[in-house]
Amino acid sequence: MYSQEIQSLLKSKNISVGNRIRIRKKKTSYEGILMPKTDVGDPNCLVIKLDSGYNVGIRFEKGTEVRKLPEARELEKFPTRTFKIRSDLPKVSIIATGGTIASRVDYVTGGVQMALTPQEILFAVPEVGDIINLENVRSISSLASEDMGISNWQKIAEEVAKELNKGVRGVVITHGTDTMHFSSAALSFMLKNLTKPVVLTGAQRSSDRGSSDSAMNLICSSHVAGYSNIAEVGVCMHAESSDTFNFFIRGTKVRKMHSSRRDTFRPINDLPIAKVWPSGKIEIVNEDYRKISKGRVEADTKFEKKVALLKVYPGSDPEVVNYFVDRGFRGIVIEGTGLGHVPTNTDEKENSWIPYVKSAVERGVAVVMTSQAFYGRVHPFVYRNLRILGETGVIWGEDMLPETVYVKLGWVLGHEKKMEKIRELMQKNLAGEITKQTDPRTFLM
Amino acid sequence: MYSQEIQSLLKSKNISVGNRIRIRKKKTSYEGILMPKTDVGDPNCLVIKLDSGYNVGIRFEKGTEVRKLPEARELEKFPTRTFKIRSDLPKVSIIATGGTIASRVDYVTGGVQMALTPQEILFAVPEVGDIINLENVRSISSLASEDMGISNWQKIAEEVAKELNKGVRGVVITHGTDTMHFSSAALSFMLKNLTKPVVLTGAQRSSDRGSSDSAMNLICSSHVAGYSNIAEVGVCMHAESSDTFNFFIRGTKVRKMHSSRRDTFRPINDLPIAKVWPSGKIEIVNEDYRKISKGRVEADTKFEKKVALLKVYPGSDPEVVNYFVDRGFRGIVIEGTGLGHVPTNTDEKENSWIPYVKSAVERGVAVVMTSQAFYGRVHPFVYRNLRILGETGVIWGEDMLPETVYVKLGWVLGHEKKMEKIRELMQKNLAGEITKQTDPRTFLM
Repeated sequence: MYSQEIQSLLKSKNISVGNRIRIRKKKTSYEGILMPKTDVGDPNCLVIKLDSGYNVGIRFEKGTEVRKLPEARELEKFPTRTFKIRSDLPKVSIIATGGTIASRVDYVTGGVQMALTPQEILFAVPEVGDIINLENVRSISSLASEDMGISNWQKIAEEVAKELNKGVRGVVITHGTDTMHFSSAALSFMLKNLTKPVVLTGAQRSSDRGSSDSAMNLICSSHVAGYSNIAEVGVCMHAESSDTFNFFIRGTKVRKMHSSRRDTFRPINDLPIAKVWPSGKIEIVNEDYRKISKGRVEADTKFEKKVALLKVYPGSDPEVVNYFVDRGFRGIVIEGTGLGHVPTNTDEKENSWIPYVKSAVERGVAVVMTSQAFYGRVHPFVYRNLRILGETGVIWGEDMLPETVYVKLGWVLGHEKKMEKIRELMQKNLAGEITKQTDPRTFLM
Repeated sequence: MYSQEIQSLLKSKNISVGNRIRIRKKKTSYEGILMPKTDVGDPNCLVIKLDSGYNVGIRFEKGTEVRKLPEARELEKFPTRTFKIRSDLPKVSIIATGGTIASRVDYVTGGVQMALTPQEILFAVPEVGDIINLENVRSISSLASEDMGISNWQKIAEEVAKELNKGVRGVVITHGTDTMHFSSAALSFMLKNLTKPVVLTGAQRSSDRGSSDSAMNLICSSHVAGYSNIAEVGVCMHAESSDTFNFFIRGTKVRKMHSSRRDTFRPINDLPIAKVWPSGKIEIVNEDYRKISKGRVEADTKFEKKVALLKVYPGSDPEVVNYFVDRGFRGIVIEGTGLGHVPTNTDEKENSWIPYVKSAVERGVAVVMTSQAFYGRVHPFVYRNLRILGETGVIWGEDMLPETVYVKLGWVLGHEKKMEKIRELMQKNLAGEITKQTDPRTFLM
């Protein structure tokens, strides 16, 4: 909220957020659109968006004049701006799918809405036009990422392949953050023979908030797509709570770990591939990545939707396994405890998962064990209960994230019918999702 | 594995692990039980357990003599030892429930078995007898923690209350690690008017492995139970990968975050209450804790078992909500994405959770939203989808862990029938499970 003093002034002049105003202070005059007060910074500072797209804060002091401009307009739509195409820069396509990075406060209802076009995004972050050649920018959906489904992954994969095969150097995908790690995993499996960078990015705070991470995330992502030699699908978001540098994390080894922090995406059981600074500096952290090369990318999007992800816990009802098997599900991923346990020798016999898992496997369902601890690896040989579980015929998910296994199993089942082949593919590293050994530095990184 | 040299020697003398042997080296003689070679350390070092309970490693060199003793016996059972009761020390009860801390390699089958009595544990960690008065040590179950159920929590709560009301200064509970955080949450709600420390501890590596954490965890837990002024239920396990110090973390704010590391238990959205060193030093990190006082503790263990914990993800099947409601479940905890989202405006209409959540609430089921990001807080007011979800009548789980909410909801539903009262209790801090503001240092701590 603006200070009482500013609020009174605005009221007296009939100025509201979204109006075009002119501020005159010590002989300098600023013109732009009045923005809402952000939750950080000086409440006695007026924030306006200049026509250049940059925000500026002007401290209200004695003698500061504020005037509503006659051409005042409601900020129902973000103003757009034509960018000069810099054909000297590497060509990168931006595909917008929705999410907070493409959202702004609706000044009428006060809620956050998603509707920005890529042009609108670029209005907010003009720096991007000086990093990459922005010939192709387009929006294929305006979905909050909690609303993303499997068909959306397939569409994104096809669009990305199309763009890459047109000859751009890389693709940046703007995406909601909630399920970005599911989408990055899906693209990792669906994009075969990937030869160029595919960078997912988003924002935890909408672009019209002072603490927005959208500008830096778009800038760092542009550097990765336009200049790095990393031919992988990955997530490029804040590495730290301050605006220092971003991580570029492999798409199959990343997870949203905080509901609101900007550095929410963390590498799990893997080092980030690189650190990326807004200046363009890219420091490789994990040498084990695929390098860029030539060749057509293929979008192989066949997918089995009948896959479930279940979590076990004390007192959990194992009959839910039957519920899914009875409905024709072909795959079940279980988030076990610790090294990959399910309730086994429970005092309440009805809570043992073993008979249900056994029956599912016997009925031809691929059951994969992962750990709800997320960090670390499942391990079939340590405890007696694990041996009992192993004897049911479950597939062990190594050090893969449950979310990645869910996506991988759907993709594998979309391609294979034979259990032995399914087992083989699930335990084989296809897109960096399985690491042989985990660097101890990665825990809670 | 021992070195080839040692293996040949043992074979030639018909000595196996578990046999009693005497090693003579440079005029000194050592007698004890031959232990299996741990995965760390010198393979050319014989490890024996002395009668004092301590392990010692003796490097095998030229001139070292090894002899099988006539009274050799299989280590089918750990030898026990009578401890001198130190009545000058604070009285602490140890309740053993099972788990790796109470496990050892079965020298016959090679698997890990759980069967140790507290006396056996103490044989392995004699130091504990010099910290606390061990009058009451007993085993109430020998469950792997993945096999713990709600009735086991109830039994533990009753046993703890009984011990505390007998006048001991605190209780240490040895427990498997997989679901220790569920049990610690359950005890936090079930033990009313807690006036003394209740410390859960366990081990990630069994006591006969060189890297076992059981000794240090028991020692640190004894210090908390015997000497701290913290009247809370908490988990006392390694804070770091090395044997430096332990954390004592509030039972409702702790989660197992790694499948195998010893520092697997981390505080989530809360600072640990204290750091605890094996020397006995206790450093309070979070001043906001309940202090010890006088008064009887009550085990209030009424619990509704018909509660489910579900996770949403792209493509997740919301009809599973009906499955549980149709089976008479009274509570459903949803692990939403980000700030507490469920799939809402999905392109595939059948994947929207809103109608199912709405119907569950209308049918009198308490539905609580949490975040699968774990760190951070759910927030009902940021996005339009969240407002839509809020209108269904869900209860927002603040910054509580989904696992804690699962336990809390079962406990609350065991006590209340009226939805308004249930809602009120779920959003009220009962046992440190809700914090008003989160210290930023706690992320990935």
